[in-house]
Amino acid sequence: MEQRRERRTGRRRGAAAGDTEAEVIDRINQPVHRLPIYELASEEALDLIHRSSLALLSDVGIDFYHDEAQAILRAHGVRLDGATAHFDREMIAEYVAQAPATFTQLARNPERNVVIGGEFVTFAPVYGPPFVYDRDRGRREARLHDFQNFVKLTYQSPYLHHSGGTIVEPTDLPVHTRHLDMVYSHARYSDKPFMGSVTSAANAADSVRMAELLFGADEIRANPGLLSLINVSSPRRFDDRMLGSLLTYAKARQALIITPFLFSGAMAPAAVGGTLVQLNAEALAGIVLTQMISPGTPVVYGAFQTNIDLQSGAPVFGSPESQIALFVSAQLARRHGLPFRSGGMFASAKVADAQAAYESVMVMLPTVLARVNFVLHAAGWLEGGLTAGYEKFILDEQLLGMFHKFLQGLDLSDNGLALDSLAEVAPGGHHLGTAHTLLNFRTAFHRSELFDYNSFEQWYEEGAQTADERANTAYKRRLRDYEPPALDPSKDEALRDYVARRKLEIVPEN
Amino acid sequence: MEQRRERRTGRRRGAAAGDTEAEVIDRINQPVHRLPIYELASEEALDLIHRSSLALLSDVGIDFYHDEAQAILRAHGVRLDGATAHFDREMIAEYVAQAPATFTQLARNPERNVVIGGEFVTFAPVYGPPFVYDRDRGRREARLHDFQNFVKLTYQSPYLHHSGGTIVEPTDLPVHTRHLDMVYSHARYSDKPFMGSVTSAANAADSVRMAELLFGADEIRANPGLLSLINVSSPRRFDDRMLGSLLTYAKARQALIITPFLFSGAMAPAAVGGTLVQLNAEALAGIVLTQMISPGTPVVYGAFQTNIDLQSGAPVFGSPESQIALFVSAQLARRHGLPFRSGGMFASAKVADAQAAYESVMVMLPTVLARVNFVLHAAGWLEGGLTAGYEKFILDEQLLGMFHKFLQGLDLSDNGLALDSLAEVAPGGHHLGTAHTLLNFRTAFHRSELFDYNSFEQWYEEGAQTADERANTAYKRRLRDYEPPALDPSKDEALRDYVARRKLEIVPEN
Repeated sequence: MEQRRERRTGRRRGAAAGDTEAEVIDRINQPVHRLPIYELASEEALDLIHRSSLALLSDVGIDFYHDEAQAILRAHGVRLDGATAHFDREMIAEYVAQAPATFTQLARNPERNVVIGGEFVTFAPVYGPPFVYDRDRGRREARLHDFQNFVKLTYQSPYLHHSGGTIVEPTDLPVHTRHLDMVYSHARYSDKPFMGSVTSAANAADSVRMAELLFGADEIRANPGLLSLINVSSPRRFDDRMLGSLLTYAKARQALIITPFLFSGAMAPAAVGGTLVQLNAEALAGIVLTQMISPGTPVVYGAFQTNIDLQSGAPVFGSPESQIALFVSAQLARRHGLPFRSGGMFASAKVADAQAAYESVMVMLPTVLARVNFVLHAAGWLEGGLTAGYEKFILDEQLLGMFHKFLQGLDLSDNGLALDSLAEVAPGGHHLGTAHTLLNFRTAFHRSELFDYNSFEQWYEEGAQTADERANTAYKRRLRDYEPPALDPSKDEALRDYVARRKLEIVPEN
Repeated sequence: MEQRRERRTGRRRGAAAGDTEAEVIDRINQPVHRLPIYELASEEALDLIHRSSLALLSDVGIDFYHDEAQAILRAHGVRLDGATAHFDREMIAEYVAQAPATFTQLARNPERNVVIGGEFVTFAPVYGPPFVYDRDRGRREARLHDFQNFVKLTYQSPYLHHSGGTIVEPTDLPVHTRHLDMVYSHARYSDKPFMGSVTSAANAADSVRMAELLFGADEIRANPGLLSLINVSSPRRFDDRMLGSLLTYAKARQALIITPFLFSGAMAPAAVGGTLVQLNAEALAGIVLTQMISPGTPVVYGAFQTNIDLQSGAPVFGSPESQIALFVSAQLARRHGLPFRSGGMFASAKVADAQAAYESVMVMLPTVLARVNFVLHAAGWLEGGLTAGYEKFILDEQLLGMFHKFLQGLDLSDNGLALDSLAEVAPGGHHLGTAHTLLNFRTAFHRSELFDYNSFEQWYEEGAQTADERANTAYKRRLRDYEPPALDPSKDEALRDYVARRKLEIVPEN
């Protein structure tokens, strides 16, 4: 046990102001979360939730619509009643204990490897939207060009550590082969770690094969080259497509996130407590299955939850109820000794206006204080996840920079206390030119490149731009400045050959 | 000691959805904060900061530019070197212990009395801007009409518990008498508690006299009728104007907030640690003086701090460094057993755009998690405090509603766990029509009246309004619907007579 729970250490950290973009990117690093964690629920409350989840798993059960998954569950002593699996209480703890507390996911640039779990925090972009939005063209269907744009913007950001997965759906490509273009785009236009396809077992197998070509077949068995997102079809149901992907990845020892997908009031009760009971049961059922397939496979406890507006049925992001559920689900994951995925810059708003920003921080600050390990949707999310916003992406990223600084915590060294400076400046004087201020000029305070701190008059004279107008200029400038990271030509060729061959082989199902 | 620290209990709480506005206002209540507090710094860190503050108070000292204040300090054993007061370490604890941990401030509607301190949270509007902003007319100088509008909007909100003070500067009125119009407007157009003038000792005395007319002279000695804001002219300096007000209020046993006003890098070192040392020293110096003047006078430990952008010198609101200072200053106040004031919906942004909202929640969520007792600037702040925004006010208030719900915490009653409902809904089914959902329909989830949760198509067809556009409509509707709370005609007449008489008496100083 203990061996698997060791943490990688000694990574290079810290970026100084005034560096070129390349220098900043070169020093990219995940933040280490050494601040206290906000523990909202008591141990007794966590006990009650977990006991209730175990009762649900044992007495009511979870459905698995996949023959091989059912056979594996049965072979490991799970009682099956049709598709419904009933898990004994002891079995849950036994299999959860086999999953590692932390693991390293490979990036093709080893400096960009990420540690998932423990004190490490990983930010990844939005996942899944079929639409994109920018101020110039409004909302429209996402295309491969947009997908690649977001891969590039993520690569350029020092505050996003992971390239994500289906950042947007490239709707201009055939459904049955677009996973190949997405995986190839991550491999080609970024050198950060990325996610595999979960749209079918065959697509997952393609993702594994491409990861083998990029990282090496042995290498990805030692440390996963893919981290992929398995959603529970809540309530209490894993579907065939997701289970096919889960089995494929677990057999190849590629990392998985098991995420109940819950809107309280719809797929879960109209109550945070009951939602947590269900979430914990569903996540554990999927996690147990991964360990039955391949003990020690890296797996992340996931929680995607918010509530609906009961009057209209619409999902509500940034709600106070979802904050509470986020804090408590993080506590449950830690109790199980598992890495945790949740949160993000969620918003119900359609454009990057004040509502979008209020909602986003209402989720993202709890995400940070709860010490979420893997934060999907950390930039770009709009409209309940239906749209990836270019301006929203750039604005969210400003906040991610602030969270990096926040996580450095309180410095009470001699330099942090600055006692000499306190005595040196006269009553009513100022610290603008002190030796201490000059010494700390570049590092004392984080500086957003995009937020406006000018006087009203200067802001007005320069065009009175709102934040999303400035972000519009900024994302276009970044894309113009993009330079791809070098990729070994033989690997590029192998990937291209594979994609070309598979496109000929794959016959659409209908 | 213990007697003074007793808390008032048994206040009516809770508002159900579907009530009329009058019913909601009638049930107004402060939230009780029974969630865990986010304790960022260790006990050792707090010790180090406090010890450093005591050394600063003793060895370096704080200046008091006011003869009577100096005489009072000297009479109580403080060493004075010119205007510079040096406080012994033991003296600080002795006088701080005389201040109450909680107190009740009177409202003219006793149901609106507020408890300041302990587990109670009080939200008050923005304070001090000389400008107002709305989308129709842009930014302009604030007038009495604006002041009264914000008093009305605050009165109408179930989520603001206090009418505040100088919500905006009524720049259309003579400087030397405008305090009379402001105090009268609070008394006339709202029945919530309010703040007194701090622009001079004479203006403070006018505020006390008007509070006596409204509440009764004996009544405000038992429980304060005014809570007033004394800013330290940092670094390490109390000026004549503020000290005159402080003495006047303390002698009348009216509550005070002692607030160091610190931008790290300007009035404090370019370091959070040193800023906290200074803040703690300055706040304690003022608090000790209040207890020397009138032991037991209610006094609040205040902290207004953020940092400047060292490149431009401009104040930066919503910064990660200011979050850390906020969490830790709250811990210091609790350590002293004092009510705490800090935080608010701060923003550097000029209009209610995404930047304003990101910044505001970056301060306000820590404000809630740190259990700040009195939150000035909880709605309406823009442009570093130079502007009160009508739309910003209404948008901020949506968040205050969410925080009320958040503070209710996690319900793990049988209804909160909903175990029957979990078993009842089939795999892949939904909870929309369950008995549990119908039972909890109105109370399960907080609903913002202004945030948009519609489909993109519906939002687009209805005009594709951004949040600040909707807020523009909302604030005008509220002002049209405003109805003043009844005021005893004899009290109204006494207040009007006093204001008229004083306007004749007061001769401008220059």
